[in-house]
Amino acid sequence: MSKRKLIQNIAALTDTTTIKVRFSEVDFMQIVWHGQYIKYFEDGRESFGKHYGITYMDVYNNGYMTPIVSIDCQYKKPLSVEDEAIIETRYINIDAAKILFEYTIYRADDHSVVATGSSVQVFLNTNRELELVNPQFYLDWKKKWGII
Amino acid sequence: MSKRKLIQNIAALTDTTTIKVRFSEVDFMQIVWHGQYIKYFEDGRESFGKHYGITYMDVYNNGYMTPIVSIDCQYKKPLSVEDEAIIETRYINIDAAKILFEYTIYRADDHSVVATGSSVQVFLNTNRELELVNPQFYLDWKKKWGII
Amino acid sequence: MSKRKLIQNIAALTDTTTIKVRFSEVDFMQIVWHGQYIKYFEDGRESFGKHYGITYMDVYNNGYMTPIVSIDCQYKKPLSVEDEAIIETRYINIDAAKILFEYTIYRADDHSVVATGSSVQVFLNTNRELELVNPQFYLDWKKKWGII
Amino acid sequence: MSKRKLIQNIAALTDTTTIKVRFSEVDFMQIVWHGQYIKYFEDGRESFGKHYGITYMDVYNNGYMTPIVSIDCQYKKPLSVEDEAIIETRYINIDAAKILFEYTIYRADDHSVVATGSSVQVFLNTNRELELVNPQFYLDWKKKWGII
Repeated sequence: MSKRKLIQNIAALTDTTTIKVRFSEVDFMQIVWHGQYIKYFEDGRESFGKHYGITYMDVYNNGYMTPIVSIDCQYKKPLSVEDEAIIETRYINIDAAKILFEYTIYRADDHSVVATGSSVQVFLNTNRELELVNPQFYLDWKKKWGII
Repeated sequence: MSKRKLIQNIAALTDTTTIKVRFSEVDFMQIVWHGQYIKYFEDGRESFGKHYGITYMDVYNNGYMTPIVSIDCQYKKPLSVEDEAIIETRYINIDAAKILFEYTIYRADDHSVVATGSSVQVFLNTNRELELVNPQFYLDWKKKWGII
Repeated sequence: MSKRKLIQNIAALTDTTTIKVRFSEVDFMQIVWHGQYIKYFEDGRESFGKHYGITYMDVYNNGYMTPIVSIDCQYKKPLSVEDEAIIETRYINIDAAKILFEYTIYRADDHSVVATGSSVQVFLNTNRELELVNPQFYLDWKKKWGII
Repeated sequence: MSKRKLIQNIAALTDTTTIKVRFSEVDFMQIVWHGQYIKYFEDGRESFGKHYGITYMDVYNNGYMTPIVSIDCQYKKPLSVEDEAIIETRYINIDAAKILFEYTIYRADDHSVVATGSSVQVFLNTNRELELVNPQFYLDWKKKWGII
């Protein structure tokens, strides 16, 4: 895949959603506990899924589950109680039977970057066996959005 | 059920387990977030279940689920990071097709009471329908422990 | 306080906010884990606080903290992944130096009742000592909203 | 730092602790929710800290906080309700004013690898400013354990 193609895909399949920091998400240091960002990434994926018609339930109803096999997060600035944050979720198209997302979390008031990260998911069938090729419904979904 | 019988049951079926407060369980006020105690109660039930042979999985393998239908907690003292707490879980025998537990959480160092509470669970069958009479496996379990 | 006054207060100081069930909030039974509702109540209080100018931070900036001393929840119906729920938070005016809320959680699609509950909070000063009389800022807040 | 030195450090400063999967940690797929592993890593750090005299509270009492600035996790096998897992936390010595840990989570019954990961922490002083050089207490701690 050329770099140009990649950039187009990023541009084409991006979702943003806004969350508000909950009181219970703040830790001893009075900032959002770092593990919470993994939930924000999940919020981002769900919002993306709803936006582009590929939620966990859509995947499940097609006979698959897509567990996370790798995740990472780099923390740039803290978030505090009542802060609003924008979660940007970018779909990165790859040929392998995997789903790759990149995330950027921005503070809502000044749009500064709070955190970045990425996740990789694989496909399991109903017997919980790893699928080595892309399921048909997923290829159809890619076609629908002009990725392949 | 007479009060005497009740007291005997409490004495007979009680479990205690010790937990250590996690860093991530502490909130903005630098004390354990109040919702966390609902997890401690669950820790208590799981420890009780293991002790008396009636874990969630035992129940599940008998074809039932036992969702919580009511819970309450009264907070007496705070817990902080690295505190150890003892969760005392008391099984309260009732005739209805319900499971009733009472809880007391103690600070481990001075055995002062941190919180008290209770929970009520019902039985759902595999169709997720409410069971109005006690399942046979549950009556057998009661017999085994001399409650009925 | 007469019953009539109480009913007026309930009518006057009520907030509703909508939440969407997160994937990570669902448990083994594929329904929202019961402890999660304690967070929904907190979401309700925060939304109420923002609506009526009495958030945790407002309280904190006035030199007080208001920890929960009692909470209860009765579960009526399950919530599942992607369900939307409406949290109704009703302020119940009492003379004592406590904050009392009642909650009703509705399923958004059919407005059926999912859960009910209540919470009690007390005032601690900056030395974390219990305040036995209502802080002035709180009385001012009550006056502003025509409760006293 | 030579590779030999690194290996020695890993061998020297390693902690293992055992956790039991909580019912509430399991998700829709009836396996431990992926974000939960970030808590397991924290459990590992806390156990390491207790073992080697460098808990969050020790750091805090020396006038510092050590927020996470980077974390990653690779998932190999699922964990289910009631599974026991061993968290191995390895301190990796580096010259920079950072704390680096690597983690391996094993299933307790067959010692198979469930997940691997790493985290990086930095030092903030009481004004929450980044410390660019290692605090003295941290250098003393390194000396005590024969790392420098």
